[in-house]
Amino acid sequence: MREDDLVVAIRALVDADAPARVRVGIGDDAAVWQPSRSHRSAITTDALIEDVHFKRAWASDREIGIRAMVANVSDLAAMGARPILATVALGFPSAFGNENVLELYRGMLEVARQARLCIVGGDLTRAPVVTIAITLVGEVRDSNLKLRRGARAGDAIVVTGPLGAARAGLDVLRESVKLEGALVEEALRAYRTPQARLAQGRWLGASANVHAMMDCSDGLSTDVARLCAASGTGALIDDVPIAACAAAAARALGVDAAGYALAGGEEYELIAAIAPRALTYLSARFHARFNRALLRVGEIRKDPEMLVRIGDRLETLAPAGFDHFA
Amino acid sequence: MREDDLVVAIRALVDADAPARVRVGIGDDAAVWQPSRSHRSAITTDALIEDVHFKRAWASDREIGIRAMVANVSDLAAMGARPILATVALGFPSAFGNENVLELYRGMLEVARQARLCIVGGDLTRAPVVTIAITLVGEVRDSNLKLRRGARAGDAIVVTGPLGAARAGLDVLRESVKLEGALVEEALRAYRTPQARLAQGRWLGASANVHAMMDCSDGLSTDVARLCAASGTGALIDDVPIAACAAAAARALGVDAAGYALAGGEEYELIAAIAPRALTYLSARFHARFNRALLRVGEIRKDPEMLVRIGDRLETLAPAGFDHFA
Repeated sequence: MREDDLVVAIRALVDADAPARVRVGIGDDAAVWQPSRSHRSAITTDALIEDVHFKRAWASDREIGIRAMVANVSDLAAMGARPILATVALGFPSAFGNENVLELYRGMLEVARQARLCIVGGDLTRAPVVTIAITLVGEVRDSNLKLRRGARAGDAIVVTGPLGAARAGLDVLRESVKLEGALVEEALRAYRTPQARLAQGRWLGASANVHAMMDCSDGLSTDVARLCAASGTGALIDDVPIAACAAAAARALGVDAAGYALAGGEEYELIAAIAPRALTYLSARFHARFNRALLRVGEIRKDPEMLVRIGDRLETLAPAGFDHFA
Repeated sequence: MREDDLVVAIRALVDADAPARVRVGIGDDAAVWQPSRSHRSAITTDALIEDVHFKRAWASDREIGIRAMVANVSDLAAMGARPILATVALGFPSAFGNENVLELYRGMLEVARQARLCIVGGDLTRAPVVTIAITLVGEVRDSNLKLRRGARAGDAIVVTGPLGAARAGLDVLRESVKLEGALVEEALRAYRTPQARLAQGRWLGASANVHAMMDCSDGLSTDVARLCAASGTGALIDDVPIAACAAAAARALGVDAAGYALAGGEEYELIAAIAPRALTYLSARFHARFNRALLRVGEIRKDPEMLVRIGDRLETLAPAGFDHFA
């Protein structure tokens, strides 16, 4: 059973109990409920486990804290929500000292301050490896809430930045690839200190022309397929924006650069499905607001197939991103 | 550094950022914030790690799910709050199959249904051992919110049930003690399928004569000391209510039964500090409502010493409950 199938089985157990106040349950980047008539709260949880999601040799404790918090902030960004508070359940072995714990917290707090959220509670425990489970609660206006479902045939698929840099960083750290100068820096920075697109997510959430949104944390090929499955559509990916260091890494490995960037992961650009007539206007305003491009990668299609254009051919897009149980 | 000291160091990092909307931050059973003017939400997180908090040989997967959810529900009960929703971050090794995962969920759902809360989201990941981090969000009226701080000199200290049964269950499972018949059942049931005192917590929360409350999950001696530290008081414990199986286990081990029950843990009775003039009335109403006794264990004292009466002598009460890093 793959990760997505186990989620479906759990959902079948759980959904029977969901009361009306729960507006979005298991299966999106975050769940949404209604604490009072005028409010929508969003909640998400994400765990990072040593030697599964990171190796301590690959990043400082502070950077591990940054990565753990960014993964959660990104899930709220993908809903168009604003984070308010976090709880942290932290497990660690006895060799992980108090100064290590505090450095991890300093990293989480750096991200928390930028996102203007507050760590309000937690749990400390022994564990065989460093285990960081963060839960974030945020707020979102009902009109700004974006889900994975909602994409329509003809929508343009956009991402908020070039892809593959974190994968290149991982390949450098694993010593599967050697890069030089600024490219190494770009790759390692993308892996160690990623950025969540929080302001961009809230901005995109405020537009009625954005029909669906999610983050790209398991790789574009896997995550576009999830967005399409939730929307009951397919997609054609025909223009993958590739980070310079990812292009160099693919070249060094002798693999197709677009394929390399499609199968990334642990990067936090947002994916959105946008009404095609609004694309030019939204892209211009996005650039003016954030000084970065909103990059068109393909389009949503009615036919539920997932396709990618390689040169002149259309091929089936296999979800090649991160599956935690593959 | 003990667990409580590390919490203090983390708090010093985190508290500087807490905005006014956060009413209770790190250091109580749950944190409390204000999503809108008329609402108070409470949030708590608690992780259970295989071979730290449980052994798979000691309980079924369903029972492990029950224990994990009860630990969290109890933290909200201790605030006088009502749980609404939960997220679950679950890590497990490849030998832990899908049916094991679903059984764990069935156990969590049993508790969730009783508590009328909904599991709305989660995260599944590989981990070296079974790792269950649950976060719960609840609601509480401002007037019903009970904290650890607030106990006053002269208050009666009460608990919602006899203590030590879960410890006896653990001792049976570890084969450090042999019990017979109904006593084994009582001990194993207390360890494997504990109950959170949710209705009792909300009922106590509604009384202005209850000045402070927390749960007893790390053992009475450790947790009363925490309540007193938060309240700036001391306490004298002079009457520890001992579960029948705990008394039998202490006898078999040749140790003092009160000391055995004081140093329990993983049991979820509530501890409350109650205005002394209200004790008789509240106890009678509690008994009428729940058909169980509200048990007086001692009193809050101005002098910040922690004392316990053993026969005719007063001894210093050492926190002998569970410290995750001791």
